[in-house]
Amino acid sequence: MRIAVDGMGGDYAPQAIVEGAVLAAQEYNTPIVLVGDEAHLERELDRLQARKLPISVCHAAEVVHMDEAPGMALRRKRFSSIRVAIELMRSGEVQAVVSAGNTGAALAASTMILKPLRGVDRPAIATLLPTQKGFSVLVDVGANVDCKSTQLFQFGIMGSVFAKYVLGKPTPSVGLLAIGEEDTKGNDVTREAFSLLKQSNLNFIGNVEGKLFFRGLADVVVCDGFIGNIALKMCEGLAEMYHQSLKAGLTRTLWRRLVAWLIRPVLNDIRRRVDAAEYGGAPLLGINGTCIIGHGSSTPKAIKNAIHMAKRFIEERVSERIQEDIERHSDIQNEWLVRRRRIWRQIRNHMTFRSERDAGETGDVDDNPQSSLPPL
Amino acid sequence: MRIAVDGMGGDYAPQAIVEGAVLAAQEYNTPIVLVGDEAHLERELDRLQARKLPISVCHAAEVVHMDEAPGMALRRKRFSSIRVAIELMRSGEVQAVVSAGNTGAALAASTMILKPLRGVDRPAIATLLPTQKGFSVLVDVGANVDCKSTQLFQFGIMGSVFAKYVLGKPTPSVGLLAIGEEDTKGNDVTREAFSLLKQSNLNFIGNVEGKLFFRGLADVVVCDGFIGNIALKMCEGLAEMYHQSLKAGLTRTLWRRLVAWLIRPVLNDIRRRVDAAEYGGAPLLGINGTCIIGHGSSTPKAIKNAIHMAKRFIEERVSERIQEDIERHSDIQNEWLVRRRRIWRQIRNHMTFRSERDAGETGDVDDNPQSSLPPL
Repeated sequence: MRIAVDGMGGDYAPQAIVEGAVLAAQEYNTPIVLVGDEAHLERELDRLQARKLPISVCHAAEVVHMDEAPGMALRRKRFSSIRVAIELMRSGEVQAVVSAGNTGAALAASTMILKPLRGVDRPAIATLLPTQKGFSVLVDVGANVDCKSTQLFQFGIMGSVFAKYVLGKPTPSVGLLAIGEEDTKGNDVTREAFSLLKQSNLNFIGNVEGKLFFRGLADVVVCDGFIGNIALKMCEGLAEMYHQSLKAGLTRTLWRRLVAWLIRPVLNDIRRRVDAAEYGGAPLLGINGTCIIGHGSSTPKAIKNAIHMAKRFIEERVSERIQEDIERHSDIQNEWLVRRRRIWRQIRNHMTFRSERDAGETGDVDDNPQSSLPPL
Repeated sequence: MRIAVDGMGGDYAPQAIVEGAVLAAQEYNTPIVLVGDEAHLERELDRLQARKLPISVCHAAEVVHMDEAPGMALRRKRFSSIRVAIELMRSGEVQAVVSAGNTGAALAASTMILKPLRGVDRPAIATLLPTQKGFSVLVDVGANVDCKSTQLFQFGIMGSVFAKYVLGKPTPSVGLLAIGEEDTKGNDVTREAFSLLKQSNLNFIGNVEGKLFFRGLADVVVCDGFIGNIALKMCEGLAEMYHQSLKAGLTRTLWRRLVAWLIRPVLNDIRRRVDAAEYGGAPLLGINGTCIIGHGSSTPKAIKNAIHMAKRFIEERVSERIQEDIERHSDIQNEWLVRRRRIWRQIRNHMTFRSERDAGETGDVDDNPQSSLPPL
């Protein structure tokens, strides 16, 4: 087993990344390939006196920066660290990739080069969030906007496999993020996804309200990537505001500083619970391979934990199991698609009928060149 | 000016509601009509020795409970407190309604009985959330799911009027909740809404990422009600988890309890900042009248503040100003709708063309009775 780590991705790259790789190599003895500017990475390894560890370096001359448009950057920068890392996975030289760089670029490279698993419409990003009971998986948090119901259905299947094999929850409960607990509460897409998930053999517990998410009601919570991303980022923003308020309040006077020092275990405990570094990374579910995306501000510890997660993915053959589970559920989805197609055909025919009648009756053909064609 | 207060709505009704009304009558000397079970409300007023205050009681025999389906409940319970209160507003006996009861029922009653303002597609619920800079308005937080771009556009206009006249921000900045700051980041609906808002004479600052919301980047942030509700509830859930963790940590030992007592001003300050009671209520924007919806768990203070907000709405003629501003922006919206209709017509004609061709070529007419009709 070898794991490629994008040495140039992240706000504190390459220092924090190399340090994280060194920690992981020390702790798990996993062979690691650092991808990026060779000279720079070698220098970091020397600085950390890590020459005896199973870490090699693979040169990549370019970097996709955090603010670059992913598609364009990938096409232009054929030798960017993330692209080279993903290519290493395709050629079988490594079994997983960890990157804390541009999320969109990691997603685009994985989708373009590795391709989604057979039967998976679009890969999704899963993330771990702390709850009152431990932690839950939220999927998708930004890979896809305007998701279809079948995609949400697949997110449920993929999230469930992740929770079962990587997080060790025997029968993970799966919920659908919605605005009420009743079956009918939600938007068009979630209502459709609800009926699909209900037919599955997942441990589907129905709709989960936003407020109940943090009570740990479900192990896996499914949502559209647009919604998941907004919810995730708003929570990050709220946590930031909380910390700021606490910090400002507790450092205002010398006396308060002293008191804050006295309760620092409590504050540290809370900080640790909401700290992204503890969970390390967000896996990309549904691709032919393993890709763990780290937070842009990943610390060495976060990188180490992301490498650990990648290791678990490989050991537990998560991608294969996702593939199997998607295939096991393909009947439900196909039946749904056939029904849907039939409805669409009816709508189309209805529109045909109406537009023919409208054209005949009102001559409403102003700005349409095709309507002057004779009926075939 | 008279304000009706739904005496029976809310988790702590009628006690907390009557106490709140009494506080408001004492502080603002506003005439208040308490709507609900007469005997019960009179008893509460006696208990509070509030007979000399300008508070009257209007009897309503029924109550819509928090967990009832709004539409059904309103039809069946013609004498429910919320319905009677809204009817009082329609007949002009009061100028505003405050309710901490079933949000869906207050929304449905307002929409059905008072009707939306001319030019407003659907009313929206706005809420105030604390930020690092003060507070911002999030609209919509649950009145509408599957919003169209023109609705988001109208939410921006309505939210802006609210922020300007009720919150006293001279030129409120308006942002669109999205997953990136670039113009193109978002889903189909937000991208369309972006171009509409850009043409308006609002102080539109573009997309606002979830994380930046709590940094107070925009005074008004616009989103689909499904997304707004989920984001709001998740933030509530996170805040709850935070408080739980702090409380658990700070009460574990006697020593820690002592320390917590020493820093209670800091903790109280934070609690106050995120406390819904401080803001009182969420106004329903875009109806013919004024309706302020309180949180289900409203305290007397929250009710008092909601009544204050209702008072500001009436004094500042917010509904009229919304109407004016919607009309002022109607050109942008109409132009958009015409363009959209043209595109739809083209798609329809294209589909007509295709389906005629398909039918002619492949005889694909299996499950459609209409396709056997001769062309008109």
